[in-house]
Amino acid sequence: MARKSSLSGFPEWLPQERLVELHVLDTLRRTFELHGFSSVETRAVETVGQLLRKGEIDKEVYAVSRLQDEDAGAAGDDALALHFDLTVPFARYVVENAGHLAFPFRRYQIQKVWRGERPQEGRAREFTQADIDVVGDGSLPFRYDVELALVIAEALGALPIPEFQLRINNRKLAEGFYRGIGLTDTPGVLRSIDKLEKIGAGKVAELLKSELGATDEQARSALSLAAIRTEDTSFVEQVRALGVSDPLLDEGLAELEQVIAEAVRRVPGRVIADLSIARGLDYYTGTVYETVLVGHESLGSICSGGRYDALASKGNRTFPGVGLSIGVTRLVTRILNQDFAAASRQVPTAVLVTLADDDSWSAAQDVAAALRGRGIPVEVAASAEKFGKQIKFADRRGIPFVWFTSADGTHEVKDIRSGEQVPADPLSWNPPAGDRWPAVLPRA
Amino acid sequence: MARKSSLSGFPEWLPQERLVELHVLDTLRRTFELHGFSSVETRAVETVGQLLRKGEIDKEVYAVSRLQDEDAGAAGDDALALHFDLTVPFARYVVENAGHLAFPFRRYQIQKVWRGERPQEGRAREFTQADIDVVGDGSLPFRYDVELALVIAEALGALPIPEFQLRINNRKLAEGFYRGIGLTDTPGVLRSIDKLEKIGAGKVAELLKSELGATDEQARSALSLAAIRTEDTSFVEQVRALGVSDPLLDEGLAELEQVIAEAVRRVPGRVIADLSIARGLDYYTGTVYETVLVGHESLGSICSGGRYDALASKGNRTFPGVGLSIGVTRLVTRILNQDFAAASRQVPTAVLVTLADDDSWSAAQDVAAALRGRGIPVEVAASAEKFGKQIKFADRRGIPFVWFTSADGTHEVKDIRSGEQVPADPLSWNPPAGDRWPAVLPRA
Repeated sequence: MARKSSLSGFPEWLPQERLVELHVLDTLRRTFELHGFSSVETRAVETVGQLLRKGEIDKEVYAVSRLQDEDAGAAGDDALALHFDLTVPFARYVVENAGHLAFPFRRYQIQKVWRGERPQEGRAREFTQADIDVVGDGSLPFRYDVELALVIAEALGALPIPEFQLRINNRKLAEGFYRGIGLTDTPGVLRSIDKLEKIGAGKVAELLKSELGATDEQARSALSLAAIRTEDTSFVEQVRALGVSDPLLDEGLAELEQVIAEAVRRVPGRVIADLSIARGLDYYTGTVYETVLVGHESLGSICSGGRYDALASKGNRTFPGVGLSIGVTRLVTRILNQDFAAASRQVPTAVLVTLADDDSWSAAQDVAAALRGRGIPVEVAASAEKFGKQIKFADRRGIPFVWFTSADGTHEVKDIRSGEQVPADPLSWNPPAGDRWPAVLPRA
Repeated sequence: MARKSSLSGFPEWLPQERLVELHVLDTLRRTFELHGFSSVETRAVETVGQLLRKGEIDKEVYAVSRLQDEDAGAAGDDALALHFDLTVPFARYVVENAGHLAFPFRRYQIQKVWRGERPQEGRAREFTQADIDVVGDGSLPFRYDVELALVIAEALGALPIPEFQLRINNRKLAEGFYRGIGLTDTPGVLRSIDKLEKIGAGKVAELLKSELGATDEQARSALSLAAIRTEDTSFVEQVRALGVSDPLLDEGLAELEQVIAEAVRRVPGRVIADLSIARGLDYYTGTVYETVLVGHESLGSICSGGRYDALASKGNRTFPGVGLSIGVTRLVTRILNQDFAAASRQVPTAVLVTLADDDSWSAAQDVAAALRGRGIPVEVAASAEKFGKQIKFADRRGIPFVWFTSADGTHEVKDIRSGEQVPADPLSWNPPAGDRWPAVLPRA
């Protein structure tokens, strides 16, 4: 499974690996659709101006230009570039199509995105994201913040991956707390707190003091908040015990309590309140989510997102939203590299119809058509080689059944795993349900 | 349906339009998988050297470079560009992964491709193709040329589109014939013949004479061949009647006869022999296919391909193949613009669970979870507005059923189309099969 791609950072799967990826994509799609999310795709390119509006990750953007275009050098705001996430394109899509959408609008979007970063495991240059968002027109009930955590927990829970943990925080809670202790540069504090796992509490305290002018007392308080992690709503008491008061803090506490309370009830063990979660992007305004695979924390977050109150606007109309994004390629790479799951065979085919002689090809197609009519995937041998060779063709691909037709019009089907061969009627025979399509099964 | 995209040539669909596209994609995928084709995806970028190897359409290629990369100007062979079709990337994939694939290898590939052409209906700059190919190691039985025509006819026949017609020719037949009448510049003759529909027979005759030095007699013969179109294998006699003989011509005739004979039997009315079909790309070496929507010929070919004996090679090992490519975006655009089909509703949701009061949200989630457990797509109202408003929420989206839960624990479900409201149990109620998921239905 550790094949190297011929272009670093641009992974390509073998057919049996692609089956695992398809299983992940199909599972996510089904879960999202069961929850009423509509599919949307946006074009792969945006204008550079649109992409850099939030002005954060310009180094990572891939520009696109016609090879023979004389203006190719001129990279103005109207120049084109590949999107680096699905949130910015979706915000543009909502604004452009607002007159045609019913709000609150819930959509899922599964597409490739591109970032010119240094490739490493868990970080490709081309990768697939699966996003869900709900966007309102003017306002959006807080309940969607709760619902999206539940949908994502259900979606991830249906995948062949180890235990995962959604870690949830609230930007209002953090901002209100910092304000309450007299630190008003919230982005600055969050940037420092975000380094907690990398550099440790001592160095973060130094940063808070040297860069933000925090006192010992303020730094200690900020770190005490970030140390709070609970599997239930007891974080509320723990924060209260720190003795800080601020109306925004109250609001954030109430919101996070609502998310955690419902999650504990509906998806116990999947969600924690983690008051150290900061999230880099500064468009989040309330709930923020991260997700780790337990035991694989070094992989980074496999699913992140949050509430944004002002990502999209049109004149004085704003479209607040809440959403999460699953790193599908990161997950699939880990599933394959660690052998968490594998496809039960290489090809869709369940039955190979063999040829007794070369003239029977058309009759074999009739058998195949009858089987396909009942939803059974079938291939017909291309030439009447020795049966041993035809069986080997099936065996190499993991095709479980081989079909024989005699000159007298009788049919038999052989399970090449057990060797059992029985009479069969093309108009009624069915394989066992588990053999009809390739299955993607978790490894023991 | 005639919304303009905000970036010319980069179409984006509204959710209800996307449902039509998804229906097309799902139908193609299912047909391909029932015939044993494996899914493969290749990265969106290739090296410029790889893309221009066949040296034909350099003007249309989109180059890709990191926005902040100082070498961005240098567009050498190692520079990256977006793929303009799926055949060239697939050929590279086969060569790179030959040691991991079982030959003959049959794959389908559904992805976006990009071409910097002038946008017009049927010609976008970003569009989706759905390809099937079978590739052999060293050799590939001719029967796959027959099979692929049948698979494509079945796939297109399952789509909500008007009558279509596969037009099939054979490069050997044409080349042998031209050689038989003394014209040896086959690509030159094909280029002229390819203009038949655009400029007419007279002008093509002039081209053949002025550019290729053909005599009146040779031009007349070449045009006689191109005029042959039959719905059965009678083209063989008609070609013979032209009195030309050449061993390659015989081979081509026998091959095309085999394809047409089987197609007439299995998919009557869908396939014709059309000896004017030339296909621009010069890597085809035998069978060539084009497909038109009857009555929409000006749209151009919606599905084309052919046999290529030497597209991919690795040292002295070659991988001959045969394949076809469906222009999905071209088809979907036509379906939407001409209203051939539409989705039965805008959203996946079949049932909206309403709220009697704000505290019942969690109980409503229990109802929703029970319904989803049986594969019914469900949304829960976000707040306990008046029932009239909650019903309007469903109505605007085409959600057919609205669920009510009383304080006494009884449930009722209302079909908002008929107004009928009946008692229902979340653990056993099912919508009619046709209402469970949005359907994409052909218009009368």
